[in-house]
Amino acid sequence: MNIVLLSGGSGKRLWPLSNDVRSKQFIKFLSNGKEAPQSMVQRVYGQIKKNIETNSITIATSRTQVSAIRRQLNESVNICIEPCRRDTFPAIVLASAYLKYVLNVNENECVAICPVDPYVDDSYFKAVQNLENIVKNSDANLVLLGIKPGYPSEKYGYIIPADSNEVSDVLEFKEKPSKDVAEEYLKRNAVWNAGVFAFKLGYLLYKAHSMIDFVDYNDLYQKYETLTKISFDYAVVEKEKKIKVVKYAGQWMDIGTWNMVAEVMANNTIGDVVLDKSCHNTHIINELDIPIVGVGLENLVVAASPDGILVSEKDKSEQIKNIVQNIGGDIRFAEKSWGTFEVINRDANSLTALLTIKAGKTMSYHHHAGRDEVWTILSGYGEVLVDGVKQKVTKGSSVMMNAGCKHSIKAVTELKLIEVQIGDEITYADKIVCEEK
Amino acid sequence: MNIVLLSGGSGKRLWPLSNDVRSKQFIKFLSNGKEAPQSMVQRVYGQIKKNIETNSITIATSRTQVSAIRRQLNESVNICIEPCRRDTFPAIVLASAYLKYVLNVNENECVAICPVDPYVDDSYFKAVQNLENIVKNSDANLVLLGIKPGYPSEKYGYIIPADSNEVSDVLEFKEKPSKDVAEEYLKRNAVWNAGVFAFKLGYLLYKAHSMIDFVDYNDLYQKYETLTKISFDYAVVEKEKKIKVVKYAGQWMDIGTWNMVAEVMANNTIGDVVLDKSCHNTHIINELDIPIVGVGLENLVVAASPDGILVSEKDKSEQIKNIVQNIGGDIRFAEKSWGTFEVINRDANSLTALLTIKAGKTMSYHHHAGRDEVWTILSGYGEVLVDGVKQKVTKGSSVMMNAGCKHSIKAVTELKLIEVQIGDEITYADKIVCEEK
Repeated sequence: MNIVLLSGGSGKRLWPLSNDVRSKQFIKFLSNGKEAPQSMVQRVYGQIKKNIETNSITIATSRTQVSAIRRQLNESVNICIEPCRRDTFPAIVLASAYLKYVLNVNENECVAICPVDPYVDDSYFKAVQNLENIVKNSDANLVLLGIKPGYPSEKYGYIIPADSNEVSDVLEFKEKPSKDVAEEYLKRNAVWNAGVFAFKLGYLLYKAHSMIDFVDYNDLYQKYETLTKISFDYAVVEKEKKIKVVKYAGQWMDIGTWNMVAEVMANNTIGDVVLDKSCHNTHIINELDIPIVGVGLENLVVAASPDGILVSEKDKSEQIKNIVQNIGGDIRFAEKSWGTFEVINRDANSLTALLTIKAGKTMSYHHHAGRDEVWTILSGYGEVLVDGVKQKVTKGSSVMMNAGCKHSIKAVTELKLIEVQIGDEITYADKIVCEEK
Repeated sequence: MNIVLLSGGSGKRLWPLSNDVRSKQFIKFLSNGKEAPQSMVQRVYGQIKKNIETNSITIATSRTQVSAIRRQLNESVNICIEPCRRDTFPAIVLASAYLKYVLNVNENECVAICPVDPYVDDSYFKAVQNLENIVKNSDANLVLLGIKPGYPSEKYGYIIPADSNEVSDVLEFKEKPSKDVAEEYLKRNAVWNAGVFAFKLGYLLYKAHSMIDFVDYNDLYQKYETLTKISFDYAVVEKEKKIKVVKYAGQWMDIGTWNMVAEVMANNTIGDVVLDKSCHNTHIINELDIPIVGVGLENLVVAASPDGILVSEKDKSEQIKNIVQNIGGDIRFAEKSWGTFEVINRDANSLTALLTIKAGKTMSYHHHAGRDEVWTILSGYGEVLVDGVKQKVTKGSSVMMNAGCKHSIKAVTELKLIEVQIGDEITYADKIVCEEK
């Protein structure tokens, strides 16, 4: 079986720990026994490797997530990069083309598309594994996973099955309903649509070619920007006649609010936190290097990162979505291919950041048009290249680079350094990458 | 009249905005009409200048507070520095010697000792002014201010007066009572001891010489460390027979908990804060440069500084005293004579700080035994002196100083700079001040 994980868009529902470049699936708050907390992508990836006999696992995502995925999974995982966002149908077609033309997967093999962010136990992935049997041994072109509802939710789409068997034909699909309508659905044995789709690779490519004019993966990649934005449900699922749903009754949670995060945290606190005994049902995640002290708190969630600090009543944590839209898109923490970049001070004409460059990694050779930079090495050994001149650096070394001066740095051992940027207009866009001579 | 303001010890009751070097009287949270928030010491000093006909105002305090006082009052205020902490009797004797031998105050003049941290309106200081009449026109050696109690508090000492007149002889003093006992006192017209004492300078010096062997201010200053720790109440007030109390019925608040701070804040928020409409009776003070977002909060106080973040139910905010004792005494923000010093990053072998040096100010010429330093100028103009060599600096300039290298910097216009310290043992104590050649 081949798994494609759709690593969805970024957003601010879990601000300040998620932002426009850091998606919620990379936040490390999940319990992992006695080890350090892990992220959703780490948990799901580990569960797939443990529970499913895979020929390949591919993560379909945007370019901004590649660094974080490589860092967190720490292996040469297959990544199918969407050149731009084009909804789930183009994304799944691109991933299917990647399987065929890059990974050379046979068209008779089964593919399961899975979202990266459900919080589930191992039985969920055993159910996903089981989809392969139905794909191979029934006449269904598409097999879906349906979640047996615990209550008449208004948040999910519903699948109405033909009967109450564990595996059923599908009668119809329903958009998110009102509560009353949802109650009617439940009487008809309806299940939530989990966004899991299994099919033979050949089926999907046939559908794709009938709707999109492309030759192979590279061709599709080149014209990706011209594709129509359309969801997989709308383009394929709702039009398919031969379709079955497999029902799953185990744990399944959508961790989209801080309230839900709190439910799955192993401990009440992560990071430097002191919770007084008078606190109840309160969870605090602190990514800052200063302590948070909680006294007499009830039903609260507190989350702190270099982007900001949230203090919210748990049941109202969903409201932050609207509030933080108006908060400056000032991103203070980013995972890079070479390590991490954390803004520690900022004013109108300067920015100071702590950079950690992993051993063996090199920053691209580049210069800036509108700012000077000064590096001061805190620890580690490395080599800088400044306007073609190489120089070894270690703790205490200081390197000045005026605007226009080309520079890069390579970490021999892990390097920590302070970067001070000085200029009248400091932007992320002002970075001109150049060839190393 | 001569006023001596006792600027009391530092402490963590208002952590994270107060710490071992920053006392609560310097936190700027008080409303001042349309102007920027002011601190307790600023408010009280302004009220004294407005309401009392003073010959002198002197602040008696420890060395650690001198920079903050000079910065916040921004004038050549008289400061009587206690070489070490020795309770209120030695402190008041030292201040009295300072008045006589440094300021040349006549022994017949009236002195009023006032604490620096009550939150009061102008009528309080009119009452203090009025003490002078009683000192000069009665036979009392000591005249005290008594606060008419609003309720039978267990937090204050009580004065039992001889009668219910506005000015009375004093029958006796009582320590902090239980609530039942306090109710008994109230029936006897008792008042709270406000810690305000007025007397003729000669009286106090006579008492002082009878108990301490000293010649003048300098002599007392030299032997200050050898003096016994004893309170002014115990050493003088409770033994004096000729003593009167003047009763005051106006506003008087002791701002010693976050709950009280919230009561006197002009607005619900100070700093970069977004409070959702669903919040009630919640106050947030944010001294960090990242936003705090509050959603659905009730009766909370949130305070954030480079030292840490407090989230507390208001009525329980008093409990932080015990909790923060165990939090590292790592001080991240300090007011200096030349400006401010804010730690923005710290690890085992480095410390990065943002320094703001006020125009015209110069740092002392010094070196460090155990650390290298690198300065990078963010804005402003100035002049550095490094191992005897002067050099002009402006934004983008970088200056490296290895351990042992003598250095200082003078701000021509206000300077902002990033200081990176690198060394195996970085301590505040490692600073050797040297003579400038």
